[in-house]
Amino acid sequence: MLTQPQAPALFAGLLRESLPGVPVWESADLAAPDAVAAIIAWRLKPGTAGRYPNLRLICATAAGVEKIIDDPGLGKDVAVMRTVDPLVNIGVAQYVLLMALRHVRGLPRFEAQQKEHAWIRHRPPDPYGVTAGVLGMGEAGRTVASLLHAAGFKVMGWSRTPKQLPGVDTVAGADGLAACLSRSKVLICTLPLTAETRGILDRRTLGMLPAGAYVINVARGGHLVESDLLGLLAEGRLAGAALDVQEVEPLPADSSLWDHPGVTITPHIGAQASVACVVTQFAENWRRLCAGQPLVNTIDRLRGY
Amino acid sequence: MLTQPQAPALFAGLLRESLPGVPVWESADLAAPDAVAAIIAWRLKPGTAGRYPNLRLICATAAGVEKIIDDPGLGKDVAVMRTVDPLVNIGVAQYVLLMALRHVRGLPRFEAQQKEHAWIRHRPPDPYGVTAGVLGMGEAGRTVASLLHAAGFKVMGWSRTPKQLPGVDTVAGADGLAACLSRSKVLICTLPLTAETRGILDRRTLGMLPAGAYVINVARGGHLVESDLLGLLAEGRLAGAALDVQEVEPLPADSSLWDHPGVTITPHIGAQASVACVVTQFAENWRRLCAGQPLVNTIDRLRGY
Repeated sequence: MLTQPQAPALFAGLLRESLPGVPVWESADLAAPDAVAAIIAWRLKPGTAGRYPNLRLICATAAGVEKIIDDPGLGKDVAVMRTVDPLVNIGVAQYVLLMALRHVRGLPRFEAQQKEHAWIRHRPPDPYGVTAGVLGMGEAGRTVASLLHAAGFKVMGWSRTPKQLPGVDTVAGADGLAACLSRSKVLICTLPLTAETRGILDRRTLGMLPAGAYVINVARGGHLVESDLLGLLAEGRLAGAALDVQEVEPLPADSSLWDHPGVTITPHIGAQASVACVVTQFAENWRRLCAGQPLVNTIDRLRGY
Repeated sequence: MLTQPQAPALFAGLLRESLPGVPVWESADLAAPDAVAAIIAWRLKPGTAGRYPNLRLICATAAGVEKIIDDPGLGKDVAVMRTVDPLVNIGVAQYVLLMALRHVRGLPRFEAQQKEHAWIRHRPPDPYGVTAGVLGMGEAGRTVASLLHAAGFKVMGWSRTPKQLPGVDTVAGADGLAACLSRSKVLICTLPLTAETRGILDRRTLGMLPAGAYVINVARGGHLVESDLLGLLAEGRLAGAALDVQEVEPLPADSSLWDHPGVTITPHIGAQASVACVVTQFAENWRRLCAGQPLVNTIDRLRGY
């Protein structure tokens, strides 16, 4: 059974090929509740999971699962897996690199000059002269950090528990977060959204960034307190932000973020796992479940990712 | 002696530190012509070299030397070296990546949507679903190609003579050029400007690109026939171009390139070698010259790079 912003028929077709004989329904209305053993979804409305007494597996089509496990009716014995698509991480890293380079190379200034037919040079910052801080050293964060380093950024990576990554100065814990924030002229959020990380980018933490810093959020809107960001932008403490995710999506038409000259808003287009990848990884776990084998890519319900 | 768009004093200060006892003049007016044994310059006006009877070495502050060796008065026994700064290659690669990602990720479309407060998603192309062709597999071209590959582009690299590069599909010669052009949705020029490469991007070669291709020139304006590009843009054959270099720099205010919606003009800001790098590499060759040892980073006057 499928609830997804992408066409369910795409998933259903591939699923039927991958798991012949297993019944597949493209919508909740078509299935008898007690016949449903697995759900593939981007998110679930609270109360959905509790309607299926024989549910054993939920497969998130994205890396983030907070829109699935927040459901209090979700039984403790239901396994939750997420899709781990390396190409999604590349897509997210593309977005970050685009926005980071657009900012540090001063593209908006050159675009404004072009309108005036003005050919005026401004020296770019020296490669490795700008520090980018990456919050989160999971699959996405590591890909982002490595690519930023390859593209001439000095990179710090922060995570809850210590991690290592070639070319990246990694720090952990509360002290590490302060160190990372205080040096990051460009700050990138790639964290999972959990009780611990909700609102992590607020007035206090954003205020620890160097003056004129730039914020890129490719994680979840819930990480960033938008009113705090707008306040610091208004005070001139921060240069701007690129927000691919927002507290409310679609971002309401009356949000002040739309018109701030330093803010770029994109409609959650960082990356999307391919249908083939979702189906392949789901089918693998379905076979493991049927055979009583341990599942892969499952998440820790308590930790939240 | 120094002729450079950057302040000569910066070079002179470091030179005096690096080569104590060697006289350094910051401008041609200050030096007796027969006392000048070496010149550090970005370009030389034709006729300049012939004025110095004891000239033995010219050091180009950039990777391209066409503005130096085009002087017919330049003696055959004068060595010409260029600056090879790995950070310059990173800077050029940053520029290419910025423009390539801006195009393939559709940033102008999202910027236009933002003005309308419209949150409408458009799926990005799959990573490795877009082929970028890199003309030139020298230091800059190789850095550009490697970074594009790391950032999720399928990459073809063309050079006059065969080269190898991990992750890059390399081709050479006339047949290789046709193969590279016919597949490149994004085409990047990093070639040296020589008699052979002048005007290499003209109606015939640009016409071999797939429909809707995008052109990025970070080499020299002389590689691209701008009127041919404008013609193909007007016919809708090409999507656009990012031109960091132009046939005439500064680009004249009445050029049609300024106002084309698909064309981004920047004022030759791809990258600049650091003063320290130029002086260090010049000083090394000066010492070698005085000691009668073979020089490094010299160019082949006949080949032109």
